[in-house]
Amino acid sequence: MPDERDVQVHLLPQLVPAGALAGAVAVVIDVLRATTTIVHALAAGCRAVVPCAEIEEAQAAAGEMRVGRVLLGGERGGSPLPGFDLGNSPHEYTAGICRGNTLVLTTTNGTRALLRAAAADRVLVAAFVNYSAVCEQLRQDARPVHIVCAGTAGAVSLEDTLLAGAFVDCLCQVGEVRLNDAARLAWDGFENHRELLLGALQLGAGGANLQRLGYDEDIRAAAQVDRFALVPELRRDPLRVEVGAVGIVKSHWQK
Amino acid sequence: MPDERDVQVHLLPQLVPAGALAGAVAVVIDVLRATTTIVHALAAGCRAVVPCAEIEEAQAAAGEMRVGRVLLGGERGGSPLPGFDLGNSPHEYTAGICRGNTLVLTTTNGTRALLRAAAADRVLVAAFVNYSAVCEQLRQDARPVHIVCAGTAGAVSLEDTLLAGAFVDCLCQVGEVRLNDAARLAWDGFENHRELLLGALQLGAGGANLQRLGYDEDIRAAAQVDRFALVPELRRDPLRVEVGAVGIVKSHWQK
Repeated sequence: MPDERDVQVHLLPQLVPAGALAGAVAVVIDVLRATTTIVHALAAGCRAVVPCAEIEEAQAAAGEMRVGRVLLGGERGGSPLPGFDLGNSPHEYTAGICRGNTLVLTTTNGTRALLRAAAADRVLVAAFVNYSAVCEQLRQDARPVHIVCAGTAGAVSLEDTLLAGAFVDCLCQVGEVRLNDAARLAWDGFENHRELLLGALQLGAGGANLQRLGYDEDIRAAAQVDRFALVPELRRDPLRVEVGAVGIVKSHWQK
Repeated sequence: MPDERDVQVHLLPQLVPAGALAGAVAVVIDVLRATTTIVHALAAGCRAVVPCAEIEEAQAAAGEMRVGRVLLGGERGGSPLPGFDLGNSPHEYTAGICRGNTLVLTTTNGTRALLRAAAADRVLVAAFVNYSAVCEQLRQDARPVHIVCAGTAGAVSLEDTLLAGAFVDCLCQVGEVRLNDAARLAWDGFENHRELLLGALQLGAGGANLQRLGYDEDIRAAAQVDRFALVPELRRDPLRVEVGAVGIVKSHWQK
């Protein structure tokens, strides 16, 4: 069928085939916690988020920016980094701290996924907290969709896959789609866990690790579907994430 | 809980973490078609199956064996190889052809998974056609279980993941288990497709490719749950697959 739209899920950044993202919209997912935190930071008034793969790179990037207008945030293994302004907990990113500042962010998994997805024509940043807003952008954009899950330390993650499945669920209601096998599996996972989302986020390896570290509140924050109506989008030269579209016409979340 | 058993699913061979398989039982899955074909070949009387990653390696291995006692089988991209005795269709492996012979087999995905899994203490070869027989071996063996899916050309495959989920389903009924996130996702997939297994096998990328090539019959053969009661097991020095345990006490397949 010529008018089928390609909707592919990649359960880890390294599973994106070379060249696959050209001409496509990519959706980057790291529910616990990078993409959830990016949405919070932009909603709280950060002007932009600059993703950096390495700690030293983040420090150097922040060092080049105007003092007092930059925040250095991130984590390794879930824990905050020495000398950084902020960790990777959504609730740290308040309006008082964020407004007017640029956030330089380095996280274990999320940043890598974002940089891998940068090969796409357009890159959206998604979490459960901005689910319906991302759905609307995907509905309005006719290009193939590639959903890139960050995973946890190189392993497939439950919570990222469930959100990927939620997007598959939405896109299947919009029109004819051609799914890869990972998209079908993600959709199955979403079907089975949509009604008990918080429980699923606590159950996965990433959630269990955060609970061990005392970040139970971050998991609850990540499970707040549609708390925000903004879609962070990757901009280039220099590479950064800014607020793209804003607004939700209707909720696409169906329990 | 100290008496929880580790049950991990790896959706592709390259996703098995280094060192993870030491001390474990590995289950290798390539439903379409390598592991289904291996079960058929051994059930039809092959003495052993020698897995080879490369075509030249397979030809060399067969060349060293006694003429008239060796079969050269395999595929690339789903199609038979020039000069080989057999392709990778289960129905080719009849008693008349197989009895008393050693099969040297090279396939695109399955062989790679088998060789990767060889790092485990014990390696079982599984397909839907010997599901309950494998379940019984896993129930009797107390070691951690690592289920290694072959996938299709480097991508996660629906049918391999569903069978992995079927094993998770069985093992969860036996005792307390500790699942990785991929095991939970595989279980979700199995839950959603168990009642329409043949349809799921036709739906995935591997199944669609086989239908394009005219191998519809192979998909139906792969969906015949519990047709055989034998468990192929990897032996070493030289590396080969032979019939391990035989027999099913009861069916573990629950629709």
